[in-house]
Amino acid sequence: MTSHNPDASRAAYYEQIAQQRLAPLWESLHSLVPKAPQPKAQAAIWKYAQVRDLVMQAGALISAEEAVRRVLVLENPGLPGKSSITPNLYAGLQLILPGEIAPSHRHTQSALRFIVEGKGAWTAVNGERTTMHPGDFIITPSWTWHDHGNPSADEGGEPVVWLDGLDIPLVAHMDAGFAENYPEATQPVSRPEGDSFARFGHNMVPVRHRVSDPTSPIFSYPYARSREALDTLYRHGELDEWDGVKLRYVNPATGGWPMPDIATFMQYLPAGFKGRTYRSTDATIYCVVEGKGTVKIGNDEFTFEPHDVFVAPSWASVSLAAQAESVLFSYSDRPVLTALNLLREERS
Amino acid sequence: MTSHNPDASRAAYYEQIAQQRLAPLWESLHSLVPKAPQPKAQAAIWKYAQVRDLVMQAGALISAEEAVRRVLVLENPGLPGKSSITPNLYAGLQLILPGEIAPSHRHTQSALRFIVEGKGAWTAVNGERTTMHPGDFIITPSWTWHDHGNPSADEGGEPVVWLDGLDIPLVAHMDAGFAENYPEATQPVSRPEGDSFARFGHNMVPVRHRVSDPTSPIFSYPYARSREALDTLYRHGELDEWDGVKLRYVNPATGGWPMPDIATFMQYLPAGFKGRTYRSTDATIYCVVEGKGTVKIGNDEFTFEPHDVFVAPSWASVSLAAQAESVLFSYSDRPVLTALNLLREERS
Amino acid sequence: MTSHNPDASRAAYYEQIAQQRLAPLWESLHSLVPKAPQPKAQAAIWKYAQVRDLVMQAGALISAEEAVRRVLVLENPGLPGKSSITPNLYAGLQLILPGEIAPSHRHTQSALRFIVEGKGAWTAVNGERTTMHPGDFIITPSWTWHDHGNPSADEGGEPVVWLDGLDIPLVAHMDAGFAENYPEATQPVSRPEGDSFARFGHNMVPVRHRVSDPTSPIFSYPYARSREALDTLYRHGELDEWDGVKLRYVNPATGGWPMPDIATFMQYLPAGFKGRTYRSTDATIYCVVEGKGTVKIGNDEFTFEPHDVFVAPSWASVSLAAQAESVLFSYSDRPVLTALNLLREERS
Amino acid sequence: MTSHNPDASRAAYYEQIAQQRLAPLWESLHSLVPKAPQPKAQAAIWKYAQVRDLVMQAGALISAEEAVRRVLVLENPGLPGKSSITPNLYAGLQLILPGEIAPSHRHTQSALRFIVEGKGAWTAVNGERTTMHPGDFIITPSWTWHDHGNPSADEGGEPVVWLDGLDIPLVAHMDAGFAENYPEATQPVSRPEGDSFARFGHNMVPVRHRVSDPTSPIFSYPYARSREALDTLYRHGELDEWDGVKLRYVNPATGGWPMPDIATFMQYLPAGFKGRTYRSTDATIYCVVEGKGTVKIGNDEFTFEPHDVFVAPSWASVSLAAQAESVLFSYSDRPVLTALNLLREERS
Repeated sequence: MTSHNPDASRAAYYEQIAQQRLAPLWESLHSLVPKAPQPKAQAAIWKYAQVRDLVMQAGALISAEEAVRRVLVLENPGLPGKSSITPNLYAGLQLILPGEIAPSHRHTQSALRFIVEGKGAWTAVNGERTTMHPGDFIITPSWTWHDHGNPSADEGGEPVVWLDGLDIPLVAHMDAGFAENYPEATQPVSRPEGDSFARFGHNMVPVRHRVSDPTSPIFSYPYARSREALDTLYRHGELDEWDGVKLRYVNPATGGWPMPDIATFMQYLPAGFKGRTYRSTDATIYCVVEGKGTVKIGNDEFTFEPHDVFVAPSWASVSLAAQAESVLFSYSDRPVLTALNLLREERS
Repeated sequence: MTSHNPDASRAAYYEQIAQQRLAPLWESLHSLVPKAPQPKAQAAIWKYAQVRDLVMQAGALISAEEAVRRVLVLENPGLPGKSSITPNLYAGLQLILPGEIAPSHRHTQSALRFIVEGKGAWTAVNGERTTMHPGDFIITPSWTWHDHGNPSADEGGEPVVWLDGLDIPLVAHMDAGFAENYPEATQPVSRPEGDSFARFGHNMVPVRHRVSDPTSPIFSYPYARSREALDTLYRHGELDEWDGVKLRYVNPATGGWPMPDIATFMQYLPAGFKGRTYRSTDATIYCVVEGKGTVKIGNDEFTFEPHDVFVAPSWASVSLAAQAESVLFSYSDRPVLTALNLLREERS
Repeated sequence: MTSHNPDASRAAYYEQIAQQRLAPLWESLHSLVPKAPQPKAQAAIWKYAQVRDLVMQAGALISAEEAVRRVLVLENPGLPGKSSITPNLYAGLQLILPGEIAPSHRHTQSALRFIVEGKGAWTAVNGERTTMHPGDFIITPSWTWHDHGNPSADEGGEPVVWLDGLDIPLVAHMDAGFAENYPEATQPVSRPEGDSFARFGHNMVPVRHRVSDPTSPIFSYPYARSREALDTLYRHGELDEWDGVKLRYVNPATGGWPMPDIATFMQYLPAGFKGRTYRSTDATIYCVVEGKGTVKIGNDEFTFEPHDVFVAPSWASVSLAAQAESVLFSYSDRPVLTALNLLREERS
Repeated sequence: MTSHNPDASRAAYYEQIAQQRLAPLWESLHSLVPKAPQPKAQAAIWKYAQVRDLVMQAGALISAEEAVRRVLVLENPGLPGKSSITPNLYAGLQLILPGEIAPSHRHTQSALRFIVEGKGAWTAVNGERTTMHPGDFIITPSWTWHDHGNPSADEGGEPVVWLDGLDIPLVAHMDAGFAENYPEATQPVSRPEGDSFARFGHNMVPVRHRVSDPTSPIFSYPYARSREALDTLYRHGELDEWDGVKLRYVNPATGGWPMPDIATFMQYLPAGFKGRTYRSTDATIYCVVEGKGTVKIGNDEFTFEPHDVFVAPSWASVSLAAQAESVLFSYSDRPVLTALNLLREERS
């Protein structure tokens, strides 16, 4: 090293230490420890009007059996090739046709299903099946056997589309993914439909139930009841300037989130609502159930209609406005941020 | 002291130390630290057929206004003069006539109301009223303003009787009782009926709710829903050899008990059920909602019919049998025993 | 009943309902639900100068073996015959002479030992012995086998006196007492002295330790370390106007109390300290380790010197003053009040 | 689409859906939901003998002031360019020369410092400084102001090297990084050295301390005490076939980890120890304090000597052997895996 050219001597030094798999922190400190989050993920919207045909075409292209899960992944334009809608979360639109089965398996990834279109298909979890209706929120928790099916057209089956939300990118980042296939296409049904809900859904629980798991013992939250709760509160005068009327789904055995890694919400915006601006370090995916409105995310603005899906990255400012009364489902990685003591929020 | 008569010298010593407010442990060790619980409380039953007239007579004897709370206290025969049904719990039958008001107050004691007979009266808690129906379970948690009322006969009011369950003896033992009267007979109504239930009763909670209190944010658990849950589980084949079908009420924001000191349960026994024997260190009060059967508590055996109230002391063996399909509500001090790490159970 | 004499008709009614084990709430409502706590327990002090000889006389009167535990119980003058110093707690002075053994047993009651005078005796818990020194705080948690012993005079044994603090009255009130004797006088020693402390006392715990119990895995808190912590903080300028320098003992595996029902504290008061007034709904027993001062409890005022024991009932105002620098150990039923959501405090 | 060439029609479809930021799950399902973890991170070792000179050269190349933190980052060969030693954790060797200051700042990243070589430098956290000695474990928790300094050579300062462990990659993945510089080079000292330890380090805590934060209130865990605990347990016969004698550092106010995202351990291996094989889904970084031995990680085998740093990725089999008695410090992302219910372990 010469003292004449410090840049050159540093460059030489950097080459030398690289041989030992060492790097100079001072060259990257600002990007490694930023003043505020610098997400690569971007705001984006998927308009169901543009996407629906493509989903239906997949039905002709590949069978559920061959695909295992016939899903179009919604890939964040800022995270190309990563099958991610945010750094921690995955979103996809799954199609199941009459008479099809998506075979039984289990994995450490937690999954939610939010029913977009169609009814009568079922999800089985832990030996119990639940029938899908638009707006229902269904969970298939980590390491539970689960399969989906649809009655044949003769039995009244119709194409059903739902939004899959999983923590696939989170579990991949953690190097903690395990999976197994069930030996049969479907697991045996050992409990009648509605059993879990009877046990845990009425603000009562079985007297000898011990909580051994953070996941909810009810796995279907029907839209009819969620919608009724939102309606009642709106009629009672509840209206937050940021959120409208917003509830979060809970695990009735703990009061916590239904699954330990994913937060889930449903909110109501009356016609004419113009929400104030909010941001937080969790990244949120929205799915429109009813209505029509606009969302501003950072510098982007999108109009939304039923079944559209949009995403707000960490720390992006979000404000919602509704032209017609609207209902939005949403999910985020908030429990992860909270568990790591990294959640920060700002209402302005 | 002489060595000739050790008993005499001990007696003299005991007198001497008593002057210093000292007592010899070795004379009382066995009763202070017993091999197993020796409750003074006894098994007992109050037959509603014998008690109802007396309750109604109280309506002529004293007004709700004068009485503040027109209640006949169910006093355990083993705890005379203590206004207690168990060492920690109180039970009473309260009557409210059409047009009456039981004025608003608050106290550190936690109270439950289990509706026995009549409908249409109301309880107000934290600015919200709930209307009573037989079998409803209502809470007025510690230090919440609460008042009760009944519409006039002209408005359709009818006499209403409920079972009051409080932790009065526990709070008295703890020397932790505080109370205040509200300046008016009734507190103002600030929220429509059903508001708490819409907010917290549907396995969802308001997104910005922070749990700051162990008591349930819903204060009425309607019988219709509890009964439906029991029915469904029985139809699904659930039947415990000790309990029949037994659920516990929960605080939906935490999964814990509705109030921190009192456990509450509802159970279903099919006709012909003959339950096995169970005992535990919590002491339990039962109120029969429907049916007919017998209960064996220690060496006592009682037949039960609707609205009868019976009590099982700590560590007494209990077995239930039903001649007709029966529903029992019950409450105990189990959360206290659990918090103190003193709960012990035995199924035989 | 005649309408001419309402008192007479009420009296007749009360007699009638008493047959059914019913009592009129309205006659006792004010005492059952008081505006503020009305403890029967009183403030009291036991001067060690007056008590010590009596304790030593017990050594001649009865052997440790016959007595099982040779203890003089400090009985609150407001709770005669109840072997209680407060409604929930027991205090006693235990004497063990050289060569004696207090035989091994276990019970659901939790016990603390605070060493008053003498050294070299031992307590064994879960197969490990710890040697006593004045000021050491030792626990024998609920349902753990424990025995005490003292080396013979030849081996250097000397009389040792400690303060026993137990939750005997609490467990009795709860009807939850169980006890067993160990088949031998002493349990086998399976771990060297200091083992628990090495495992859990250094702000580290064994990597595979699972917390399954609320009680502390260390059972001796030596005075030398507690005193050093108090000294350091006082030198650093810590001085609360109410408490002086006050620390609470913790279970290092949870941060909670060492035992689930009893809070334990040690505090330092510099010479000349005049503390402000405090009250709370837990009732507290103090044992003076060093120094000289006065305590005002409600309307009573006591001077205190080393080894004196005094008690402050629930909600009594307490203020401490020190003429010489003083150290006080204290214990209370605070965890019980906290668990039941009944703790109230007031600093004035 | 033609039916003649399904591959071509699929390819065409994939291009079409890519326009809508959609991707076919079925092409990537196996890699997204693997049967078992497939970490990119590799096993690696940094031999201090090879690295020490490079660290010291950095002292001549750049000042602490210019560098802010003069650190050589240990970069996992499987994660090039990511400044990461595991997906969630960062490791670096920091050098501070006599008379230097590493200026005060704070950030949401949690940091640990494990002292490798030299003594007498200090870290300041929350107004208190702690002096470094080899083997000390020091934390600078999330969002606390912290600075480091070293006395001048005249005052006895000597070069000090420590291992920095941070959750930089985790916080970056979560898009939750915030940082601020302190207006001065060093924060004011407001508490004497040893204050936190006196308050919280002796199995006692200040009586009015409320736990409001998951991070430990003590920020220095001196090697002398950790080493003594390991020694004592080894002398007492403790020896796990996998771990030797292994303790985890705890937050004495909660029993949890010192910081919410990073687990920290110290373990002792006697001379001749040959450990059995273990694996888990947390990825661990080891720093050798004393001794000499070998570690097998997956198919790699390394010999280790004092100050060497090595890393085991998620789910890699690890077995340790010691030729001389050895002490290892280690840290991992275990609390993250646990919080997300993703920790899996296997001892074989």
